[in-house]
Amino acid sequence: MFSLLDRLTFSGGKLWGGRFVGETDPVMEKFNASISYDQRMWDADVRGSKAYVKALEKAKLVTTDEMTQILHGMDQISEEWSKGVFVVKPGDEDIHTANERRLKELIGAPAGKLHTGRSRNDQVVTDMRLWLRDAISALTENALQLISTMVERAAVEIDVLFPGYTHMQRAQPIRWSHWILSHAVALSRDVDRLQELKKRVNVLPLGSGAIAGTPLSIDRELLRKELAFDGISLNSMDATGQRDFVVEILFWASLCLTHLSRMAEDLMLYSTKEFSFVTLSDAYSTGSSLMPQKKNADSLELIRSKAGRVFGRCAGFLMTLKGLPSTYNKDLQEDKEAMFDCYDTLHAVLQVTTGVMSTLKINQNAMEAALSPDMLATDLAYYLVRKGVPFREAHSLSGKAVFIAESKNITLNQLMEEDLSAVSPLFGSDVSSVWDYRSSVEQYSAPGGTAKSSVTVQVEHLRNWLKKQAQ
Amino acid sequence: MFSLLDRLTFSGGKLWGGRFVGETDPVMEKFNASISYDQRMWDADVRGSKAYVKALEKAKLVTTDEMTQILHGMDQISEEWSKGVFVVKPGDEDIHTANERRLKELIGAPAGKLHTGRSRNDQVVTDMRLWLRDAISALTENALQLISTMVERAAVEIDVLFPGYTHMQRAQPIRWSHWILSHAVALSRDVDRLQELKKRVNVLPLGSGAIAGTPLSIDRELLRKELAFDGISLNSMDATGQRDFVVEILFWASLCLTHLSRMAEDLMLYSTKEFSFVTLSDAYSTGSSLMPQKKNADSLELIRSKAGRVFGRCAGFLMTLKGLPSTYNKDLQEDKEAMFDCYDTLHAVLQVTTGVMSTLKINQNAMEAALSPDMLATDLAYYLVRKGVPFREAHSLSGKAVFIAESKNITLNQLMEEDLSAVSPLFGSDVSSVWDYRSSVEQYSAPGGTAKSSVTVQVEHLRNWLKKQAQ
Amino acid sequence: MFSLLDRLTFSGGKLWGGRFVGETDPVMEKFNASISYDQRMWDADVRGSKAYVKALEKAKLVTTDEMTQILHGMDQISEEWSKGVFVVKPGDEDIHTANERRLKELIGAPAGKLHTGRSRNDQVVTDMRLWLRDAISALTENALQLISTMVERAAVEIDVLFPGYTHMQRAQPIRWSHWILSHAVALSRDVDRLQELKKRVNVLPLGSGAIAGTPLSIDRELLRKELAFDGISLNSMDATGQRDFVVEILFWASLCLTHLSRMAEDLMLYSTKEFSFVTLSDAYSTGSSLMPQKKNADSLELIRSKAGRVFGRCAGFLMTLKGLPSTYNKDLQEDKEAMFDCYDTLHAVLQVTTGVMSTLKINQNAMEAALSPDMLATDLAYYLVRKGVPFREAHSLSGKAVFIAESKNITLNQLMEEDLSAVSPLFGSDVSSVWDYRSSVEQYSAPGGTAKSSVTVQVEHLRNWLKKQAQ
Amino acid sequence: MFSLLDRLTFSGGKLWGGRFVGETDPVMEKFNASISYDQRMWDADVRGSKAYVKALEKAKLVTTDEMTQILHGMDQISEEWSKGVFVVKPGDEDIHTANERRLKELIGAPAGKLHTGRSRNDQVVTDMRLWLRDAISALTENALQLISTMVERAAVEIDVLFPGYTHMQRAQPIRWSHWILSHAVALSRDVDRLQELKKRVNVLPLGSGAIAGTPLSIDRELLRKELAFDGISLNSMDATGQRDFVVEILFWASLCLTHLSRMAEDLMLYSTKEFSFVTLSDAYSTGSSLMPQKKNADSLELIRSKAGRVFGRCAGFLMTLKGLPSTYNKDLQEDKEAMFDCYDTLHAVLQVTTGVMSTLKINQNAMEAALSPDMLATDLAYYLVRKGVPFREAHSLSGKAVFIAESKNITLNQLMEEDLSAVSPLFGSDVSSVWDYRSSVEQYSAPGGTAKSSVTVQVEHLRNWLKKQAQ
Repeated sequence: MFSLLDRLTFSGGKLWGGRFVGETDPVMEKFNASISYDQRMWDADVRGSKAYVKALEKAKLVTTDEMTQILHGMDQISEEWSKGVFVVKPGDEDIHTANERRLKELIGAPAGKLHTGRSRNDQVVTDMRLWLRDAISALTENALQLISTMVERAAVEIDVLFPGYTHMQRAQPIRWSHWILSHAVALSRDVDRLQELKKRVNVLPLGSGAIAGTPLSIDRELLRKELAFDGISLNSMDATGQRDFVVEILFWASLCLTHLSRMAEDLMLYSTKEFSFVTLSDAYSTGSSLMPQKKNADSLELIRSKAGRVFGRCAGFLMTLKGLPSTYNKDLQEDKEAMFDCYDTLHAVLQVTTGVMSTLKINQNAMEAALSPDMLATDLAYYLVRKGVPFREAHSLSGKAVFIAESKNITLNQLMEEDLSAVSPLFGSDVSSVWDYRSSVEQYSAPGGTAKSSVTVQVEHLRNWLKKQAQ
Repeated sequence: MFSLLDRLTFSGGKLWGGRFVGETDPVMEKFNASISYDQRMWDADVRGSKAYVKALEKAKLVTTDEMTQILHGMDQISEEWSKGVFVVKPGDEDIHTANERRLKELIGAPAGKLHTGRSRNDQVVTDMRLWLRDAISALTENALQLISTMVERAAVEIDVLFPGYTHMQRAQPIRWSHWILSHAVALSRDVDRLQELKKRVNVLPLGSGAIAGTPLSIDRELLRKELAFDGISLNSMDATGQRDFVVEILFWASLCLTHLSRMAEDLMLYSTKEFSFVTLSDAYSTGSSLMPQKKNADSLELIRSKAGRVFGRCAGFLMTLKGLPSTYNKDLQEDKEAMFDCYDTLHAVLQVTTGVMSTLKINQNAMEAALSPDMLATDLAYYLVRKGVPFREAHSLSGKAVFIAESKNITLNQLMEEDLSAVSPLFGSDVSSVWDYRSSVEQYSAPGGTAKSSVTVQVEHLRNWLKKQAQ
Repeated sequence: MFSLLDRLTFSGGKLWGGRFVGETDPVMEKFNASISYDQRMWDADVRGSKAYVKALEKAKLVTTDEMTQILHGMDQISEEWSKGVFVVKPGDEDIHTANERRLKELIGAPAGKLHTGRSRNDQVVTDMRLWLRDAISALTENALQLISTMVERAAVEIDVLFPGYTHMQRAQPIRWSHWILSHAVALSRDVDRLQELKKRVNVLPLGSGAIAGTPLSIDRELLRKELAFDGISLNSMDATGQRDFVVEILFWASLCLTHLSRMAEDLMLYSTKEFSFVTLSDAYSTGSSLMPQKKNADSLELIRSKAGRVFGRCAGFLMTLKGLPSTYNKDLQEDKEAMFDCYDTLHAVLQVTTGVMSTLKINQNAMEAALSPDMLATDLAYYLVRKGVPFREAHSLSGKAVFIAESKNITLNQLMEEDLSAVSPLFGSDVSSVWDYRSSVEQYSAPGGTAKSSVTVQVEHLRNWLKKQAQ
Repeated sequence: MFSLLDRLTFSGGKLWGGRFVGETDPVMEKFNASISYDQRMWDADVRGSKAYVKALEKAKLVTTDEMTQILHGMDQISEEWSKGVFVVKPGDEDIHTANERRLKELIGAPAGKLHTGRSRNDQVVTDMRLWLRDAISALTENALQLISTMVERAAVEIDVLFPGYTHMQRAQPIRWSHWILSHAVALSRDVDRLQELKKRVNVLPLGSGAIAGTPLSIDRELLRKELAFDGISLNSMDATGQRDFVVEILFWASLCLTHLSRMAEDLMLYSTKEFSFVTLSDAYSTGSSLMPQKKNADSLELIRSKAGRVFGRCAGFLMTLKGLPSTYNKDLQEDKEAMFDCYDTLHAVLQVTTGVMSTLKINQNAMEAALSPDMLATDLAYYLVRKGVPFREAHSLSGKAVFIAESKNITLNQLMEEDLSAVSPLFGSDVSSVWDYRSSVEQYSAPGGTAKSSVTVQVEHLRNWLKKQAQ
């Protein structure tokens, strides 16, 4: 028996070293380890441990002196990480193990007390929530900068008209700023969502142990304050086993990128030779290795493509969670790479989009040249509506006018009075007033419409909203 | 030319009848139509039209008399739908067309004025938001009933202990109520999310037209009040072209069902012959067509499976949106079936889960018999911690004790004093106090823990939360 | 006891009627039932049962007379279904139960022998494989018709040139037929995939029972022949519990629709006012309820959107399968609606796409007018390459020429000789030969290129491939 | 003008250096670059270039001497990569640029000729197909090794019985080997699929240029032979713009992992304390940082979780492709990380699963102790069937017997003769023969069943199939 115990004493240095006698498959070892990516949370891990040791000291599970040693040790570890000199060693399977191993090297025995009553189950989720809280702040700032850029651009270019499209077909004349704001408004909802989910992220799980909570007199309120969390998790099994806060950010990013993919698609259309409405800055374009004349809107294509990438992370992680028994299962380890990739992608995309939107040149001539009289066919119908014709009939009569113009191969405003009278006797010479794009647009002055006054209200609304966010 | 115009006059009765001369492919016609499923929104469509005609009247686009006729007509249509006697006719491609066609049959000419300044683009999204607002109320109620059932059950069965599992392996003794509440807490976050997204659903899009807004003096504030929306959409292009409110509910449902799939998985484990912790009511079980002895937990399997189904809807619709040019494209037509299916599924799942949770029988004997002394190995380590051993060392020593017990094929609490002293001289006769499950559990009294006091606090917290929701 | 037994005798008519004493929740009942959609497989179910009774007769488990009665009964059921007079009754939870219930009504006692040694687990999967085999044949035919339409159109319009785009920017002049064939070639791979997966669908599972196989002398080879399957399932647990054949068709459809979504996107671009390369037939377009002039390519938008829908089915079902314990679980019930929806969608989309492609009008003038000299910049570089300049340098020099032309606001072919000599002294007067689109295109004569000869080879290749498929 | 040209001459060293005058955003630059991950294809890139220069020489676009220099240069580059000394420099945005830049450093001017008539559009997809072809070979070998391990284990442990489960409930006694083979059979279909898709991967795209093909006399058949491709791409636009070969491998991996997730789930159930059927080797288990007694089946959890991860890659990339205009768009850059991650994951999972399956210990006693007489209720029904009772009635009568036994709290085989006669007078004393698990199992001897003979046939079938694969 003793020899067996002796053998155990020397069996590796793994956290659960006391028990295992078998060897490990190196593929399995690598497969199992998360240190290659979770080391990114070193700062959160250090902060979490520093708070935790204070709670241990309050609970008299470490002495004040031991606490001080641990705090100093953690500070030194922090410095090593920030200087890029921390050395990950074989056996450091995750950031928690690595930091604790290093602590032991630095301060010796007291390091062994740091994990008292803590489990990696509550430790990892504490690290993630701290990390993500900061990430959300960064993304919020990125998004606000983008929206602000768009709003100010909309304010400046408010007098530019161009075709509004539905079904990718010219529909009605609108303000270019109306288009910009349509995307800014969608993005502002994304920011609202991000603030909502941040509340759910910013909750302290530490003190939940592996599953049952903590049996020691750990003051969770002290932990909460130290780590500046808004609240304390309600149930230890939920705190360690659920990852909806991760799924939420993954979905949030997927939806935000879906919005951006649509804006990018519009801009790609507008930057084709055929539309020629906008020209991307060279800084956001690339050329071809074969075709010397090419200038490609690569930035927009990348923006568009990332919706798929991040959604894939969301889909994958949700599938991993599906049907998983509750509490911690190793399957949850998929959470971190997804979270990091999602942040990195959004962080870059939002900045690139801001760059694109702030350097884009518009070709006002091309935009206004693309307006055509048939886009006023709805206004032609309203002309009749104002003379008492029910809309359905007016719509049909205007449609006939369009048809005649097409048949004659002329534009709608070139129709002769006799052509129009054949459609409806109500058409008079005052119909010519219909054919002015600017006055057409000005009619759309109800809230949300494309009239200058309405668009100005939108600009002001978003400016105020931005101010409120900044507070 | 006149003969052509004449021909046009009779060309079908489609809304855009004035223009097309070609024939339609019947496959295309069916492919294009949405009436088979969107008729479900008949009530919202009627309500929207009734509000709209009031705005038209205020704008003097219909007379008071015409308004009255239209309101009466819409009421009659409403009655036909609710009695199940409304006849959908060929050519009714969607609910809007069907209702307007019927209105014309009922009241004649004034019906042609109802669509003045309105587009199906803003009409359909108004209908959807009205419908979804009601659906969210129903789902909220379903979810609250489920949570309430779980909380009250947890209150009643608070004294039952059973094994808490991590990695599907017995971990530590916990209260059965602690398990119940871990899922209730997750569901309560789902309800919180649902309330948040409801605010974004409950916004009036009507008055946005096809893309540019409305050029007529439509009072959107009047529309908002009539339809009890919380706010008015800010930008007409965003209002008609974005569907993030649909994506949000689809994702919400996916996440909620993922939570339920995990709870169902737990219960399926617990209801195996091998665990035998719970017995489903016959009402939520079925048998086998081949094996007479089988009693299958079909209800739980259905709950678990629906996470996939609804997530599929979310994934599919998000993919449909990806890269779509802005404003309305026909692709958006995928929104409705996804929304309906998601609602129907959740509505049924939440009720069935409530049924399962309120009729489930627990087998307390089996639950407590499954507790084994090795589940107290952590407590054994804490015993040493309290005697001053650093946790890492205590963990290792406790692991050795486990190993010796396994080697001797006895349970941990059957180890002799000499066995334990070989592991650590600090083990004394008072170690026997460790082997009591109830006192073990009572130690976990920090917030969120599994001690009776902590679980009681959770129950009270959720009861208060439920009360607040009900207001 | 007897009274209990008596009560059981009358307890409902469910297949497992002998055992349950509880009541059923109506929501659960509806949730559990599949008859509303699986009745669609009535014909496969009848065919399966007819084959099965022959095997029972061979195994002497029914008499020849009983077999004849059952066969006649099944024929009568088949007739009722095909005439639309089969009445589904409460309690018919699925098509198997419904048909067997009806058989009992028609022929009495012998009906009770039909299910001998069969389980719904092997029955349902037999029905699905029979149904899907036919569905695959129909989809293959639909796809071949589309490809054939495209190939023949490519043959006819082989002389039309237009801009080839990469990154949505004009790249090089290509043949319109080259574009058509690029999509036809992708679709031909889809057909190849469909044929491969069909082999895996066309395998007999009947005789696998619920899990363990059949203990009766059921001749599975007889079943295979009767039902014209290509092979017999190897393992009864795999046969009843796996659904990869369903996942395969769902994925197949997702990929095929992704191809079609890209083709539709191209065509939508080409049908914008700005490109004006193609005009959709009115049969595949619709108008606007608001804007009289609009003609929308709804068919293309629907095609594009369906990629999301069907992928959602694939994603959802795969998520349902993830982590499912092996053999039959009720979760598998999600398989059928996904399979049906996928078939219906593809069946319609392929036909509509064929319609679109066969009726589309091209605007050759607009197409050729869109060719511009800068698209020959690559050829300009090759001009230098042929004079010995390394390609990298030639590419750079050609790029400079493009830049100068842009700076001077002239087209590339309007550059003066002195402009070009400033770029490279190798440019001579023979450079004018570069500026011919037709001769440019003819250079691309390697296999797969856009020269007439290469495109003709592609046409011939696909014609031969189509012939082989038809066999 | 000249000064402008001069400035251009020095503007960076980008491939399209001749044209751009703007600055680049560093975030955009990093966002755009793929070198951090695509360098992994260095070997394929070198091989492709070596083949290509041979074609250039044959076309007299490089001299034999230049070819030799380029070949030597590429060999040197290859050596640098394989030794890990290749230095990636700023500006090397992808592996193609990096290798060509290095070639120029090594051999000077002739390096500028290598890209003649080649585009990165056909180059990258050539690299990917070469890389993936090798990856598929590796995965095939991994999968065959796993299947072989399973088949041989099934052969050895053929006499072990245990409960077969459906709906996670004990259903019928089966052989443990029958369970193993059920998963092996599913995996063998995965290998079949992999071989099919490999044919579509192994097709030469080089010679397709950017979009239109190659205008130089590049002998594509020579390229095909040099690179050992099975065929040549048919259409240059399809060759450069489609990525279905990537989607196929992503989906393949998702389906294969879904199979493995189900097997892992079974094994996790079987390794719970409650089932105790199997014990994982320590090499594939880990412990807990908190609970000394824990031994977790982490390997199985990781296997299960990876289905989500890889499916996420598939879903994400398919979403990226949805609605993408045809030919090359930068969005396609998402293809490589997805492909690499999918390979790495499968490569590890297949090896770990092989390790798990070859070291797993089964607890035959526990397995057989879990068989219970009620699992023979189906056989009890068949007893009556053999006495002429229609199956439906027999099933119901057997169900009654089960009910009586449950009511009396005895096992089914403990029912007295009078109990059984009360259910049916046909029950005689020979009913005792039913209660033997081994003879029960032996009845299931039809193909695919669980009798020893049937399972042996399955083993032989798979052994033969494995032999054929190895050829």
